[in-house]
Amino acid sequence: MARADFAAGSLFADLRAACRDDWRGYVEHDFVRKLGAGTLPEAAFRRYLGQDYLFLIHFARAYGLAVYKSETLDDMREAAAGLANILDVEVGLHVKYCSEWGLSEAEMARLPEARETMAYTRYVLERGLAGDLLDLWVALAPCVIGYGEIGHRMMRDPTARRDGNRYGAWIEAYGGADYQRVAAAAGAQLDRLFARRGGPARMALLIDTFREATRLETNFWQMGLDAA
Amino acid sequence: MARADFAAGSLFADLRAACRDDWRGYVEHDFVRKLGAGTLPEAAFRRYLGQDYLFLIHFARAYGLAVYKSETLDDMREAAAGLANILDVEVGLHVKYCSEWGLSEAEMARLPEARETMAYTRYVLERGLAGDLLDLWVALAPCVIGYGEIGHRMMRDPTARRDGNRYGAWIEAYGGADYQRVAAAAGAQLDRLFARRGGPARMALLIDTFREATRLETNFWQMGLDAA
Amino acid sequence: MARADFAAGSLFADLRAACRDDWRGYVEHDFVRKLGAGTLPEAAFRRYLGQDYLFLIHFARAYGLAVYKSETLDDMREAAAGLANILDVEVGLHVKYCSEWGLSEAEMARLPEARETMAYTRYVLERGLAGDLLDLWVALAPCVIGYGEIGHRMMRDPTARRDGNRYGAWIEAYGGADYQRVAAAAGAQLDRLFARRGGPARMALLIDTFREATRLETNFWQMGLDAA
Amino acid sequence: MARADFAAGSLFADLRAACRDDWRGYVEHDFVRKLGAGTLPEAAFRRYLGQDYLFLIHFARAYGLAVYKSETLDDMREAAAGLANILDVEVGLHVKYCSEWGLSEAEMARLPEARETMAYTRYVLERGLAGDLLDLWVALAPCVIGYGEIGHRMMRDPTARRDGNRYGAWIEAYGGADYQRVAAAAGAQLDRLFARRGGPARMALLIDTFREATRLETNFWQMGLDAA
Repeated sequence: MARADFAAGSLFADLRAACRDDWRGYVEHDFVRKLGAGTLPEAAFRRYLGQDYLFLIHFARAYGLAVYKSETLDDMREAAAGLANILDVEVGLHVKYCSEWGLSEAEMARLPEARETMAYTRYVLERGLAGDLLDLWVALAPCVIGYGEIGHRMMRDPTARRDGNRYGAWIEAYGGADYQRVAAAAGAQLDRLFARRGGPARMALLIDTFREATRLETNFWQMGLDAA
Repeated sequence: MARADFAAGSLFADLRAACRDDWRGYVEHDFVRKLGAGTLPEAAFRRYLGQDYLFLIHFARAYGLAVYKSETLDDMREAAAGLANILDVEVGLHVKYCSEWGLSEAEMARLPEARETMAYTRYVLERGLAGDLLDLWVALAPCVIGYGEIGHRMMRDPTARRDGNRYGAWIEAYGGADYQRVAAAAGAQLDRLFARRGGPARMALLIDTFREATRLETNFWQMGLDAA
Repeated sequence: MARADFAAGSLFADLRAACRDDWRGYVEHDFVRKLGAGTLPEAAFRRYLGQDYLFLIHFARAYGLAVYKSETLDDMREAAAGLANILDVEVGLHVKYCSEWGLSEAEMARLPEARETMAYTRYVLERGLAGDLLDLWVALAPCVIGYGEIGHRMMRDPTARRDGNRYGAWIEAYGGADYQRVAAAAGAQLDRLFARRGGPARMALLIDTFREATRLETNFWQMGLDAA
Repeated sequence: MARADFAAGSLFADLRAACRDDWRGYVEHDFVRKLGAGTLPEAAFRRYLGQDYLFLIHFARAYGLAVYKSETLDDMREAAAGLANILDVEVGLHVKYCSEWGLSEAEMARLPEARETMAYTRYVLERGLAGDLLDLWVALAPCVIGYGEIGHRMMRDPTARRDGNRYGAWIEAYGGADYQRVAAAAGAQLDRLFARRGGPARMALLIDTFREATRLETNFWQMGLDAA
């Protein structure tokens, strides 16, 4: 089954298994289901898009932090690639995409930051600053790898529609090969860091971080739905 | 008038004046008015107390950060005094106080952190990490000095009651001379830092920070009320 | 005169003017003069090259930190460009260049870090962490813009030789148009940040930072010479 | 034997064992031997004292950072106690002590920071910022616990003299019961953090950090000797 296979045998899979209910609440959230089925109200999607723009800016900052926290040139290149992906690809894609939805970049930059956006982004950044590079990547994982899982599932889900789905571009962006590679690279980096800085003693705190970030992602979907 | 006099002629007063409506929404919030009048539902107060315990722990971390960010021994002593005040006085007072309300420290330590607590504390910490010591103190000011202003006003407000008010101890804690000194010291430190690191060019960003922190304080009161 | 024109009318020029003697000690250091004249002992250059490789890795981390500390997408892109320049251009150029000098990347990665390398890199990083984005860029400026000034002068200096100078490639790398653009962009970013976060009150501390970083650069040249 | 017993069975003992030669170079440095024997030139001691004052200020900042990086109220109290020990006891003792050696606090505050002081303090702070609380405490350990070991050994060393030794007050400060408790508490905190955040995978990097900090301490003694 697609779901079970995604990232099997990785630290990510262990963290996900340890937070099964919270994880399901996130990747199977109504917002996600409706987006896949093409039934999500446009107001919900527009709210999400605008806040996601603000979110991406802080997420790029988190990758900058990961560059700073790196201990090897390889770590640094991994983080710099994630940063470039956001600044050069995701933000641009977002801006282009949003303009199709009638949201200009200038409008998005002026949006008040929702409490949900603030709670999530500052939690991740602060967790990464207080902890080490492994703590930071674990805090990023529900978003970076989770979006990969959601896209992967939607591409295979018989109840999801792409033809005639006004959100089809979103599904293809995250389910497509390029983003799947980004998610896989993030998972591999997580495993490398765990080999160098992890161990059984750290799992309890890492699970706390992963669960907290997962719940904050869930709140982010809910913020979208609440606008509809 | 007590209100107008509080901290007049200081950077704090300028920041407050620049965010007048948000500030009023915070210091005159229903939670505050009802607490002063003794009519606040106990469930609201209990919710607030439990989250304030978690809040204080992160606020102590912010003072640790201020020690780290200090450039003089005097800055460091100022921040270390704030830290000691939280760890040695406020947390203890909180624990003692909460036990009278039937909340043990062990119970509070196990409370899930509310989204409002998380948004506020991580915003302040992250703002202080990304910016300098002045940014950090400005992010702390709505709480540290604002509680002083609220306590100061309640001690003078003819519509506030202390006799027979079950929240009288709270009012005396923040309106009393000890806390008023803490708030005044924080205001003086803000002015010193502005003289050394500030200037007109920085006001726009400092006001943004002050306003954001003020709104997050307002959300914190609301979280209490919502529990009633 | 080439010297006087470089970056005239900028914050950089003001900082340089405030530290005139220290600045001269850096940009006119014996290491620099001899490199320009082609008379620098190879052992000195080789020592410099190896430590500069370690230095660049930490400098890339400083640009990661600048991405994290950014408050606008433009700040972030500026810092990300600096980061990419180091990771994609300078490190590669360095490795290629060093291999011509008989130093492999693997050898360089194993070199013990000299005290001078450590003092300089950690000073810059820590200054940037304790202060704000302006403090960080000022700490970076003696290196980033200073190398531009040194290259610029060498290209115009009648006593410098490029033909038959075994260090000609170094001179062309830093005096050439590509690096001159990097240095000019860093100067412009410094001015933008000063407009947003600076002011007369901050000059004293910014000058301290600039002077300290300049002296640490001078120590870095001296470390090279001491190996000869 | 006193030496073997100090902190036996702890993470500190494992780190020390992994860096045996570097450790010996530090705790048996000529500066230390001569101080113990009372034969250290006064100029060396005076140089050390002045720089140690600057060092302590940055070390206090490192304890502030440890408060910030804490994940429990107990971690925070441990770090806050270390901070208070420096600000309230060590700095004061230092100032009093230095005045007996003809160095006023105002003079010390104006001293240029030696390269050795800068390299050591910024390395520790930056290591702590890039890594987690365990990395930070490991970077602090050669100083905090190492001084305890040096004082402990001097109190028992038949070749060390305290009667008529002009450095007797230094020996008693670090060999005395109060400081021995500070060192023991730091060792216990290290063990607690390793239980929660450590594991075999992390030892290689922790040993690197411990060795680097030990060498930087050795450089600090040497800076004192070089002034004689």
